[in-house]
Amino acid sequence: MEAAFGGIEAGGTKFVCAVGTGPDDIRAEIRLPTETPETTLGKVIDFFREQQKQQEIAAIGVASFGPVDPDPSSPTFGHITNTPKPGWANTPVAPILKDEFGIPIGFDTDVNTAALGEHSWGAAKDVDTFVYLTIGTGIGGGGMLDGKLIHGLIHPEMGHIAIPHDWERDPYAGTCPFHGDCWEGLANGPALEARWGQPGQQLPPDHEAWPLEAHYIALGVTSIMMIMSPQLVVLGGGVMEQEHIFPLIHQEVKSLLNGYIQSPTILEGIDSYIVPPALGGRSGVLGAIALAQRAIQDD
Amino acid sequence: MEAAFGGIEAGGTKFVCAVGTGPDDIRAEIRLPTETPETTLGKVIDFFREQQKQQEIAAIGVASFGPVDPDPSSPTFGHITNTPKPGWANTPVAPILKDEFGIPIGFDTDVNTAALGEHSWGAAKDVDTFVYLTIGTGIGGGGMLDGKLIHGLIHPEMGHIAIPHDWERDPYAGTCPFHGDCWEGLANGPALEARWGQPGQQLPPDHEAWPLEAHYIALGVTSIMMIMSPQLVVLGGGVMEQEHIFPLIHQEVKSLLNGYIQSPTILEGIDSYIVPPALGGRSGVLGAIALAQRAIQDD
Repeated sequence: MEAAFGGIEAGGTKFVCAVGTGPDDIRAEIRLPTETPETTLGKVIDFFREQQKQQEIAAIGVASFGPVDPDPSSPTFGHITNTPKPGWANTPVAPILKDEFGIPIGFDTDVNTAALGEHSWGAAKDVDTFVYLTIGTGIGGGGMLDGKLIHGLIHPEMGHIAIPHDWERDPYAGTCPFHGDCWEGLANGPALEARWGQPGQQLPPDHEAWPLEAHYIALGVTSIMMIMSPQLVVLGGGVMEQEHIFPLIHQEVKSLLNGYIQSPTILEGIDSYIVPPALGGRSGVLGAIALAQRAIQDD
Repeated sequence: MEAAFGGIEAGGTKFVCAVGTGPDDIRAEIRLPTETPETTLGKVIDFFREQQKQQEIAAIGVASFGPVDPDPSSPTFGHITNTPKPGWANTPVAPILKDEFGIPIGFDTDVNTAALGEHSWGAAKDVDTFVYLTIGTGIGGGGMLDGKLIHGLIHPEMGHIAIPHDWERDPYAGTCPFHGDCWEGLANGPALEARWGQPGQQLPPDHEAWPLEAHYIALGVTSIMMIMSPQLVVLGGGVMEQEHIFPLIHQEVKSLLNGYIQSPTILEGIDSYIVPPALGGRSGVLGAIALAQRAIQDD
């Protein structure tokens, strides 16, 4: 049997582990609650050990909740760093797996990995410079420039940029503990729920919540467009499951740009420029498998 | 004599042309007013033809005012595109030089080229992921990610991002014809002059203009930091010649981040993280020489 790759989507509430070579060849998959590192990583190791009896696993990729150190040249590469999540601060996830299995281990942020999944098999196939944003409990951003995952000084988060807050239209102060009404503070899922008294999935599509939400999302997206000039913007995460807001976002982005970017991609094709992830909720674990495939090449 | 490279800084008001191999070896230099393309490019060609009698010129680099097409795979590569500057729209600058001299021609935006100059010999030496911003008549941004000049869908401009406008503190409406009070509209040189009734270089360092200017500059810089996570930010352009505002900007950036980015580079070293260009006003023409050197390698 052809060698497979392991993928781990390490989230703050659950871990998803899979073995396979891509979306059409997932040979096994489990979901585990995120408990202590010992318990959860123990179960992860058991799963892959069991799978190794069926087939060779050539490498494992990890899409991790953060903050993380994704720099392969750093002594703390593959660690979850200063997370407030109890027990998980300074957990050397990639080194533990490397010691256990002795195979190449890829490691990156959950958002960058989801971006890689969409690049390998989803909405960003054949697109080398794009952004993937998740808008849910928080707002996080990742993506690629010229085919390389974006890292920089620290991996960029993108969610905490300052945006104009129209207090007359929206007196809600924002959820962010650092900045109050930054982009994440005004546009994440908890802000939506706090502002309107119920979670987004319970608000009807014609509720006044949505034009305001689309306005805020569009403000952040246009800043990213002007700074990075992506060829595509993929919007995922819990809030974006309300797909009826995509057309509102398209309109708001065009209105905010006000003709400034004279590209037919945006002027005529914005419906296919700002899009949902094609892999839906599977971008992360599939991206982790793609990360494992890259880890082999880089090793 | 060792072969030299030609550099052209093609600006909206003047052209600077130089021949040499770097900052310590500039063998000839001229400044020309920007007239019609025929007149000015004619004089540019005459200058390099004359120089070719002294030495071989291996390649020429052009740092051009925009908008431009810097994509080597595009049929309009090296053109100035839809500029409002009379006579210059759709001028094929790089093709004209290529036809004339038959040597490799590098071509990029003025800001990306200045970034390359700083990377080759200035403030961004040995830094592979950084941003160069010019804050003057407009605000423009360029830079590198992993050692490659940033391009994307269109070359990013960065100046037109939305930032919070505190109308109580600052009732000035902004200069931008597209967006009014976007970053450029609130923080460029003309906004400074319109708001206070005199140009920046005439305002004393203790004038109330400067804390507000630093606040606006810091808002844009923090958005760029959060989106791209550069390892260094270089701030050039006319407004930044008032170097007394650097410490104000450092303080404002830290205050806006409010502890969100836990990197010693920023928490302890912000004085060497947000810096003036080391080449001063020569980043552009020297960057054009570096662009010529790259054009040889890519040819």
